[in-house]
Amino acid sequence: MEAPAPGAGDGRSGSDGPGTRIEDGIERARGGDARALARLVSLVENGNAQLRPVMKALAPLTGRARVVGLTGAPGVGKSTVTGALVRAYRDRGLRVGVLAVDPTSPFSGGALLGDRVRMQDHATDTGVFIRSMASRGHLGGLSAATPQALRVLDAAGFDVVLIETVGVGQAEVEVASLADTTLVLVAPGMGDSIQAAKAGILEVADIYVVNKADRPGVQETVRDLRTMIAMAQRGENDWKPPIVTTTAMTGEGVDELTRRLDAHGAWLDSCGERDRRRRERAREEIAAIALAELRRRLGALPGDDRLGELAGRVAAGQLDPYTAADELIAGIRSAS
Amino acid sequence: MEAPAPGAGDGRSGSDGPGTRIEDGIERARGGDARALARLVSLVENGNAQLRPVMKALAPLTGRARVVGLTGAPGVGKSTVTGALVRAYRDRGLRVGVLAVDPTSPFSGGALLGDRVRMQDHATDTGVFIRSMASRGHLGGLSAATPQALRVLDAAGFDVVLIETVGVGQAEVEVASLADTTLVLVAPGMGDSIQAAKAGILEVADIYVVNKADRPGVQETVRDLRTMIAMAQRGENDWKPPIVTTTAMTGEGVDELTRRLDAHGAWLDSCGERDRRRRERAREEIAAIALAELRRRLGALPGDDRLGELAGRVAAGQLDPYTAADELIAGIRSAS
Repeated sequence: MEAPAPGAGDGRSGSDGPGTRIEDGIERARGGDARALARLVSLVENGNAQLRPVMKALAPLTGRARVVGLTGAPGVGKSTVTGALVRAYRDRGLRVGVLAVDPTSPFSGGALLGDRVRMQDHATDTGVFIRSMASRGHLGGLSAATPQALRVLDAAGFDVVLIETVGVGQAEVEVASLADTTLVLVAPGMGDSIQAAKAGILEVADIYVVNKADRPGVQETVRDLRTMIAMAQRGENDWKPPIVTTTAMTGEGVDELTRRLDAHGAWLDSCGERDRRRRERAREEIAAIALAELRRRLGALPGDDRLGELAGRVAAGQLDPYTAADELIAGIRSAS
Repeated sequence: MEAPAPGAGDGRSGSDGPGTRIEDGIERARGGDARALARLVSLVENGNAQLRPVMKALAPLTGRARVVGLTGAPGVGKSTVTGALVRAYRDRGLRVGVLAVDPTSPFSGGALLGDRVRMQDHATDTGVFIRSMASRGHLGGLSAATPQALRVLDAAGFDVVLIETVGVGQAEVEVASLADTTLVLVAPGMGDSIQAAKAGILEVADIYVVNKADRPGVQETVRDLRTMIAMAQRGENDWKPPIVTTTAMTGEGVDELTRRLDAHGAWLDSCGERDRRRRERAREEIAAIALAELRRRLGALPGDDRLGELAGRVAAGQLDPYTAADELIAGIRSAS
């Protein structure tokens, strides 16, 4: 953990302690103050010294937001569908947060599509908060900070949080572990169903969205999905994922999609599945934080580069990686 | 770790200890015995009790194989390019191993494309060994066992090991961390360059392969790649990734590709970069094993479900996830 930068943060001064300032910031974010909210999200994203007191203060305020994950291969129109859902929920008077996890380079660490582009439609609407999260390497396609940013939006009173992520491989599984409801987006002509199945993306879907439904090949895509859904083993009381066709660019099909989302939400509540998913989410979240902390200790033991030294011996064939890992763990456990 | 199953393994009996049998198996695998080799790979994939003695025995035999990673979005023809490279290296009399990491469902755990399909062309050739590795959830797109399987093939005397993985998101980074040389495959008309950049796939490439070069749009794709390469910051002595166009199905361009691979191999050796990459690989490998072991301890402390209990309190808003992670780590460190 870094030392707190003196005077960093909200730029206020005075004799009130950090606790007071944190609670004040949370209160303002809950009241719709977009700058206070943005500051909280940045704080959890940067993981500075205030992260822990903020998380403590947020905990009792969490648990209300409905969390919808959107995933799919590049080019299926995730951002457009996200935008259409934002509009639909705003029309109902709900506050909507969006966390867009851009799988940008692990080398650059930056987000290619800035928030500005995405914000344009909702720039003046305090009922909408949109944030691009950089995905930062090792902890998978989802940014390690995404679960914490979700907690901030939840505690700040957002009714719905949409989490958009490119999903081919791991990210779709992670988004499913964060979300109450996972939308898997496909588009006609994006490669045959075997390729889709190869990417493992289909099994996390609560709802399938065939977007760009104005393109040729929609019927084939829907038929392929139907076949795959029919083949999947599920119990009598399990949720059967529906297929919704949309042309998000024009808004076509978006009403149907929100109806399906409502139905899935009602199902989650009726059978206790929402609670089960949220406990599972907490489980993953705690384990990820603990692992990140342990990884930090593995890579940065005070005063030496134990891992680098072990790696040199493994690369030279003098040591096998399991014995090296044992030595590394022994080092952690004797250090603090 | 599991207890060793009595009599499991190679089905032999006798008074010789497990050490002797392991060394015998390794010796036979080095001599070209495909069954002995397959048994060793299965052993590291299943992670049974013999894993550690096997890894110890293999360590001094490793470090010779050249490791080439192939990655790209679904549909670019990775398997076809892999097959073409296998043939090209066989024509030179080299032994070639292939590890195909299928990003199958984390739920089913199985591999959709069996080894049988891929093996057809080389079924009777003991100079080729092909194995599909299931990717198993949490440790990212690459199977956790892939680095260990690579060690087996390396120790067994394979000159070249090709690691094929679907890469959009995390997997391409992981394949780059395993490989000496990483090929990033694209195909014409697979979405515009912004989408490709979004997926973060381009920055790990040592060589770009534009496959399916008989399709329309090759020139545009090559031009887009050139622009991106030109924009990338690199030092005077850094490797500048070339672009090779191939039609792997017909073999067109494969000679050029192997020449580029040779050139990259020579560069790696000339500047010490191969050693640097291999130390980095060992570093990642050790850390991953250590983390997997720590994760096991996090999730499965003897006699209780500490993580589940903490998750329940976090989900209910009674505890924040950081405090929960601290408690979890404290539990690990007092347990063994």
